[in-house]
Amino acid sequence: MGRVTERRKVIRIRDGAISTRPDTLVAEEPLEIRLNGKPLAITMRTPGDDFALAAGFLVSEGVFGRADELQNIVYCAGATVDGSNTYNVVDVRTAPGVVLPDITLERNVYTTSSCGLCGKASLDAVRTTARWAIDDGADAPPVRLEPALLAGLPDRLREAQRVFDRTGGLHAAALFTEDGEMLDVREDVGRHNAVDKLVGRALQRGDLPLSRMILLVSGRASFELAQKAVMAGIPVLAAVSAPSSLAVDLAAETGLTLVGFLRGPSMNVYAGEHRIALRAAAAQG
Amino acid sequence: MGRVTERRKVIRIRDGAISTRPDTLVAEEPLEIRLNGKPLAITMRTPGDDFALAAGFLVSEGVFGRADELQNIVYCAGATVDGSNTYNVVDVRTAPGVVLPDITLERNVYTTSSCGLCGKASLDAVRTTARWAIDDGADAPPVRLEPALLAGLPDRLREAQRVFDRTGGLHAAALFTEDGEMLDVREDVGRHNAVDKLVGRALQRGDLPLSRMILLVSGRASFELAQKAVMAGIPVLAAVSAPSSLAVDLAAETGLTLVGFLRGPSMNVYAGEHRIALRAAAAQG
Repeated sequence: MGRVTERRKVIRIRDGAISTRPDTLVAEEPLEIRLNGKPLAITMRTPGDDFALAAGFLVSEGVFGRADELQNIVYCAGATVDGSNTYNVVDVRTAPGVVLPDITLERNVYTTSSCGLCGKASLDAVRTTARWAIDDGADAPPVRLEPALLAGLPDRLREAQRVFDRTGGLHAAALFTEDGEMLDVREDVGRHNAVDKLVGRALQRGDLPLSRMILLVSGRASFELAQKAVMAGIPVLAAVSAPSSLAVDLAAETGLTLVGFLRGPSMNVYAGEHRIALRAAAAQG
Repeated sequence: MGRVTERRKVIRIRDGAISTRPDTLVAEEPLEIRLNGKPLAITMRTPGDDFALAAGFLVSEGVFGRADELQNIVYCAGATVDGSNTYNVVDVRTAPGVVLPDITLERNVYTTSSCGLCGKASLDAVRTTARWAIDDGADAPPVRLEPALLAGLPDRLREAQRVFDRTGGLHAAALFTEDGEMLDVREDVGRHNAVDKLVGRALQRGDLPLSRMILLVSGRASFELAQKAVMAGIPVLAAVSAPSSLAVDLAAETGLTLVGFLRGPSMNVYAGEHRIALRAAAAQG
């Protein structure tokens, strides 16, 4: 399952000079996610961490919140006509007693692999499905991040990206503690998949909700990514590029701290500014 | 329906200096696409050109190839509980006699709004669904593009982007003739939507297949974008960033010319190099 990259021949043109050589590309293949044997969604993903991807996807959709709700995940055999396994279909089994959301009623959730939770009540739906409120715990002081700490995270993400430099085609997502320690980093051709892989691994470790954590993504912050942060109980979402209007609205409604355009000491805070030490930043200036 | 951008308050941090001001964000809202009254897909999109988006989406899915197959598109009324129209649900009616693909059998097509055509037979499925072969016409000389012509297109795309500079959150896609004339440009929070809007407008103009055209996208070239080019009969797909393995494989199988990392005079040709004037490029070098 280590097909994170593939080699293809490429013709390079550089200022009129032409050369032909093998090039490393990000691998992209479909993954069908089944829940208790029933096909649920298909996503185009970079192979690897498929079980975590499936588990994380189901956290985002409100199916899982605890490791013991997940019985097991297997690759379905015989996916091709000749019976060989493509490792592109996984079946996720819920533990006995786990009550599933109503697939018929909640069709928005179950028919969109990459747009996340959609529909006119997108914001309400996240609020009603979320297992946890976005807070910093009753027994702990509020999370309060220095801008200087946030400023250093994108470079650490890029350093940790093992594949990006070779292919230029991968989105990355990483989890950091409030002290700036990187706990995990995942890459995928789809930004939503990278986050699902992070969250799925956290579920499997028994680490949900991811209270007091920072989720950093290499690209933009869409509604879907904000939704995934909320569903995993992550209080801070930071993105290197722009957020969308609906991502900001969801963050404001749920108490998620949303930072965009995080580029060294420059950043924009769109929601949840109580977790950013703004006074300290001003004193530095 | 001109909600391409929205204003939100933002706290800017720049080297320790803090300021609060209104910021322009790319608008993101769900759009439900219905086909003859039946819900088909939901995509998170930037409002505007919704009818073109729906039409183009259905070209990609093999439903439409000619303008006269499309009867009309309307916004569904009463989408909210209080009966007001959110303009987030459109119904596409096919003309009498149009035979739809089997929705049950082709569930992959109809359950993934953003991953496009998926499944273990992704490549085969595009080939069997495509209305046109990717060729340059029987009565015309083959398309042959100078690298210098391609080199100038990304700057022209950026100049034409009316919203990108303000929000940083929009993907763009543009159609060019083989002479480098820009015919149309669309922007959206989702790259696939920007292409659907282009293709849908072309369908409505009666311009499909888009033979001898160049499709330029501002980001990466995924399988889904290559699929959309093939389904619209576009022979050349150029991307500013990296392609995925499956996009290259689809291009190689269908005869699509795929150019990636198009950045001024530097570019990589991954497939269909017979449409690129490589000898001229070498002579320039």
